Amino acid sequence: MKNYTLTAVGVGPGDPELITLKGLRTIQEADFIFVPRSQDGEKSLALRIAKEWIDHDRQQIVELLLPMTRNADRLVPAWQGAAQQIAEQMQAVTGTETVKGVYLLLGDPLLYGTFTYIWAALAEAYPEITIEIIPGVTSFAASAAQGQFVLGSTSERVAILPASYETDETQLRQLLTDFDTIILMKVGTVLPQILDALEEMDLLESSMYAERVGMPEELVAIGADLRALKNQRRPYLSLLITKQKGSQF
Amino acid sequence: MKNYTLTAVGVGPGDPELITLKGLRTIQEADFIFVPRSQDGEKSLALRIAKEWIDHDRQQIVELLLPMTRNADRLVPAWQGAAQQIAEQMQAVTGTETVKGVYLLLGDPLLYGTFTYIWAALAEAYPEITIEIIPGVTSFAASAAQGQFVLGSTSERVAILPASYETDETQLRQLLTDFDTIILMKVGTVLPQILDALEEMDLLESSMYAERVGMPEELVAIGADLRALKNQRRPYLSLLITKQKGSQF
Repeated sequence: MKNYTLTAVGVGPGDPELITLKGLRTIQEADFIFVPRSQDGEKSLALRIAKEWIDHDRQQIVELLLPMTRNADRLVPAWQGAAQQIAEQMQAVTGTETVKGVYLLLGDPLLYGTFTYIWAALAEAYPEITIEIIPGVTSFAASAAQGQFVLGSTSERVAILPASYETDETQLRQLLTDFDTIILMKVGTVLPQILDALEEMDLLESSMYAERVGMPEELVAIGADLRALKNQRRPYLSLLITKQKGSQF
Repeated sequence: MKNYTLTAVGVGPGDPELITLKGLRTIQEADFIFVPRSQDGEKSLALRIAKEWIDHDRQQIVELLLPMTRNADRLVPAWQGAAQQIAEQMQAVTGTETVKGVYLLLGDPLLYGTFTYIWAALAEAYPEITIEIIPGVTSFAASAAQGQFVLGSTSERVAILPASYETDETQLRQLLTDFDTIILMKVGTVLPQILDALEEMDLLESSMYAERVGMPEELVAIGADLRALKNQRRPYLSLLITKQKGSQF
């Protein structure tokens, strides 16, 4: 009976130095490096972060095709296909008792990562593969550090929301009454609407936007500088942090 | 004109391997290692995580006394005192143009960390000290990884709340309607009330508790196992994650 372990490694938000020691060691110990390949460019980014630690002679990189869609009829078969690809690759190895794979993704694996879907497909079809998770630094923690923006202190409440599902201004207003800090993930495609709502609520001054933080393409805008982005749709790997007025930042 | 830089380094949740490469490098480059000393034991824990990388011949460890209280009359002078201690130590160094200090804390510096208060005191009294922040893996990401508990996927909303301010069951119910995942930080002292509320709401099965995750003293309880903790007050470094029923985990 062979041992198969697949470890989801959060490689952090973008700066290669923000990977953890544990993530790095686990990547170096792996036989297979699985990376999602999608239209949002996340593939090349997670791999770009890890590539200097990969030994191409000893380790095999396998790209998994994941479509960028919300259509479950296309997504579910894609996840099942990725799970099958992972299992077949690992189970084809001969001459060793233990086969190790890592699945690389940006940020943290359990916060809006692609791994959770593949995990469900693996658990169903290939329960013989042990799953492990190594947490990573999130993009919002890195963005806050870059912008020197306090996310929460003392009694403050923080809400994390995927922005593309949160374009209702009434709801946004209510959330900003109930929470001290709101983090809107993946805000790029709905940025114009969100910035309009924040300006109307007089909250631009206590907001920051960050895109691909820690990468060479990084863009950070804080307070009044957000106005320059008002009519732009921006990439998927982006977020906006807004603090309630009067709350410390 | 000398250069003074103080970098707040999130050393991660507890497992020494969950520090980032950047955090480790910055600690090793520092002249001073500042660590908060408080009754919650955080001092010894942040220092315990970093200690194997500290060179005691070259680097100086300075403990800063921070009282465990919500009383601003005691807290504000303590933060000012800590800021003064940091500034005086760094400014007393002779024979070098650049003086570097790190302030170590668990998790991420900008999410419920002690640094934000000292930062405010430093900014006011010692603006000549440049502040930098290195993000860290949060305790909730590490707990979720340990418990294999999905924090958020697709359109899910996540709320992070300091538990000791959130004992109102009506509010908790409302939050569990509006959010898919609720993370209650520092839940230890109010654990009995919170578990009672969750049991009444039939949510114990989709909840997990974690204390000092990744440390030798780690305690993790998931689902029905939470009942064993029902009448216990637990330490400060603890959290509870609850998923709405029907949401994926």
